[in-house]
Amino acid sequence: MLTLYLTGGCLIWYIFPMFVTHLECCRCGQTYESEQVTNLCRCGSPLLVRYDLEKVKASITKDRLALRKPDLWRYRELLPVKESENIVSLGEGMTPVLHLRRLGAGLGLSNLYMKDEGLLPTGSFKARGAAVGVSRAGELGVEAVAMPTNGNAGGAWSAYCAKAGIKSIIVMPASAPEIHRKECAVAGAQLYLVDGLISDAGGIVARAVAQRGYYDVSTLKEPYRIEGKKTMGLEIAEQFSWQLPDVIVYPTGGGVGIIGIHKALKELQQIGWIGDKLPRLVAVQAEGCAPIVRAWQKKQAESEFWPDAKTVAFGLTVPKALGDFIVLRGLYETEGCGVAVSDEDIIEAVKTLAGEEGLFICPEGAATICAATQLANDGWLKPDETVLLLNTGCGLKYTDTLSVDAPVLKPGDDLPDL
Amino acid sequence: MLTLYLTGGCLIWYIFPMFVTHLECCRCGQTYESEQVTNLCRCGSPLLVRYDLEKVKASITKDRLALRKPDLWRYRELLPVKESENIVSLGEGMTPVLHLRRLGAGLGLSNLYMKDEGLLPTGSFKARGAAVGVSRAGELGVEAVAMPTNGNAGGAWSAYCAKAGIKSIIVMPASAPEIHRKECAVAGAQLYLVDGLISDAGGIVARAVAQRGYYDVSTLKEPYRIEGKKTMGLEIAEQFSWQLPDVIVYPTGGGVGIIGIHKALKELQQIGWIGDKLPRLVAVQAEGCAPIVRAWQKKQAESEFWPDAKTVAFGLTVPKALGDFIVLRGLYETEGCGVAVSDEDIIEAVKTLAGEEGLFICPEGAATICAATQLANDGWLKPDETVLLLNTGCGLKYTDTLSVDAPVLKPGDDLPDL
Repeated sequence: MLTLYLTGGCLIWYIFPMFVTHLECCRCGQTYESEQVTNLCRCGSPLLVRYDLEKVKASITKDRLALRKPDLWRYRELLPVKESENIVSLGEGMTPVLHLRRLGAGLGLSNLYMKDEGLLPTGSFKARGAAVGVSRAGELGVEAVAMPTNGNAGGAWSAYCAKAGIKSIIVMPASAPEIHRKECAVAGAQLYLVDGLISDAGGIVARAVAQRGYYDVSTLKEPYRIEGKKTMGLEIAEQFSWQLPDVIVYPTGGGVGIIGIHKALKELQQIGWIGDKLPRLVAVQAEGCAPIVRAWQKKQAESEFWPDAKTVAFGLTVPKALGDFIVLRGLYETEGCGVAVSDEDIIEAVKTLAGEEGLFICPEGAATICAATQLANDGWLKPDETVLLLNTGCGLKYTDTLSVDAPVLKPGDDLPDL
Repeated sequence: MLTLYLTGGCLIWYIFPMFVTHLECCRCGQTYESEQVTNLCRCGSPLLVRYDLEKVKASITKDRLALRKPDLWRYRELLPVKESENIVSLGEGMTPVLHLRRLGAGLGLSNLYMKDEGLLPTGSFKARGAAVGVSRAGELGVEAVAMPTNGNAGGAWSAYCAKAGIKSIIVMPASAPEIHRKECAVAGAQLYLVDGLISDAGGIVARAVAQRGYYDVSTLKEPYRIEGKKTMGLEIAEQFSWQLPDVIVYPTGGGVGIIGIHKALKELQQIGWIGDKLPRLVAVQAEGCAPIVRAWQKKQAESEFWPDAKTVAFGLTVPKALGDFIVLRGLYETEGCGVAVSDEDIIEAVKTLAGEEGLFICPEGAATICAATQLANDGWLKPDETVLLLNTGCGLKYTDTLSVDAPVLKPGDDLPDL
């Protein structure tokens, strides 16, 4: 369809086709049509968006892609929004990939990189899922969404819903960092706290959805958030000039990031833009909540509920992820692994990265450094392999753990002697 | 010179020439050579970097530019770094320009846009100046820099210095938001607080520089920070497809942003990439510290020191900017204006923008909305004019002013009735 598209200040007519064919259950394979509001499969499992990849392949070339605006909508042939006027954008996408020279040298990894998702709107990778999820929800006529969150997703969905004029109902553990409440509230979300974990928040949301008809946008309970997260994988491929890294290390709570990256890479294979070999995917969790790592260690297909989950990397506090089996499938298929790291190491890694590389990142992102350290020491990572760490959020949201003791001077004072 | 340049994960050989010819005093016109460490002109005024613009024009086309990586180094022919290996980057640049449809409709401005500099590394526009300033300082052999700051510049310079391995000495008012201390400290800066204003911090830095030989990187006291800020103007031109907006509204503390944008646009005129007409530049200050606005109202060439400066938009608390006369020159030359806005309106505007457009921005950025409102009501802005507001930082750094009162539920509870 020929539609108006905004580039910078200019309205330009663009061909903006959508290639979605249907939704498909990732467990039983049941298919659903995609033009109505849908949540899970009848079997209780998440639905994935499927595209006519032959048509995608015929519609876009890498060279034409290279000329597009640097946001995630540059991959629109692989996204589920039909009309460009339904796009709800705060400028998300094309986050930088940075070479961690000094840190890598210390670990004996000369090709260590970090993709910094902290530079997205709302300061976290959750903006990708919210941008695509809210855009599609609006396109399908949704007027109110509800979700449980550990914080960042709530902040992101609140903001994008505000832009879209969609009502958002957010339920968050009372123990989540206070800054997340504020970003939900300032965007006008209807915010509730719960004395419990995200799984408890999820229960409250499920009942509210059943009683009041809100659209349930919990992790993996609607099909479109993954499509937004998928753009991480598309960007990684493009930013590495379609030569993928050997390993991708991802902090794993609900698991949508790693699922999205894996889906992206498989779609790129199908349109022939990348080769057969996929990066080994590494799921990083905290020792205080590592259900997927434990399942991987036992070579199980699914994780078990993790009791008394607790970690400083609050976003990783997901005792049992709905998509655990998809994450595990990704680890097995790519010959990746799961790694659990300690809170002490995470806190130390935040400081190390800021001091050595100038990057002030979130604890979840710092967990990937701890994992890379373990895997380099074990020899699982080879010195010349290209290793990409994903930082999922900016450190500015997590300053509560830092304290500063700086000298206070009077205006006439000189700097004290060192 | 042929040098290695990193794009995504690939090392590519690039021609990377530098076209700087000399430094020039912006007041008396005295020239200086650019290959040694330099601060102010002998007359006490800031130095500007000058380029061989004819050679720049012959070296790059708009089409070739369009293919480059979306960071500020895409404009390298107009930047003062000689060797690409001296570039210190955290992934800065190409921040989004967003159409504020809902807010604009409310103000009767159908073409109201915001460029969101809150998505830069360290969460503010200061990253641009730090990226270029630190890169050039390192290239010239500087080992330690010192600066006074209201917060954001300190955070940015600390981070880029950490990446570069340069020591940073930061002096900040004790009344600056606490988050800024933390980002300096985590990056390993030597941080001091002062019971006073940024002008008092500046006095302490000046004495330390004289006694200890640090490189003084205070606002406008070295020539390269402006060059980083200039990239805002270059991006604006490119993002608006080289058809400039009619008006650019900028929150003005030290004034380097507006000076940089003006310099960028004049250089683009000289290489023939934009037409004769420049946007009207609007300097926005707070009623509690509006020296440049007052000078503009009186048609003066310079501002006077503003006693008892105080505003919620802390970055605007600059009682007398070294570059005030350059800012004022920009306002007069472009037939722009100065506008002072109240703290009450600023706080309200932060909430309005978050609720209506999903953008959680800093008070300084929100001040531009208050100014646009005044100017639209006065008729100074016409309904069909293209008006670009600059948001200089992310709201996540300014959550202290927000309070949230959300209901706390137990795990078994339902959502309360509304």
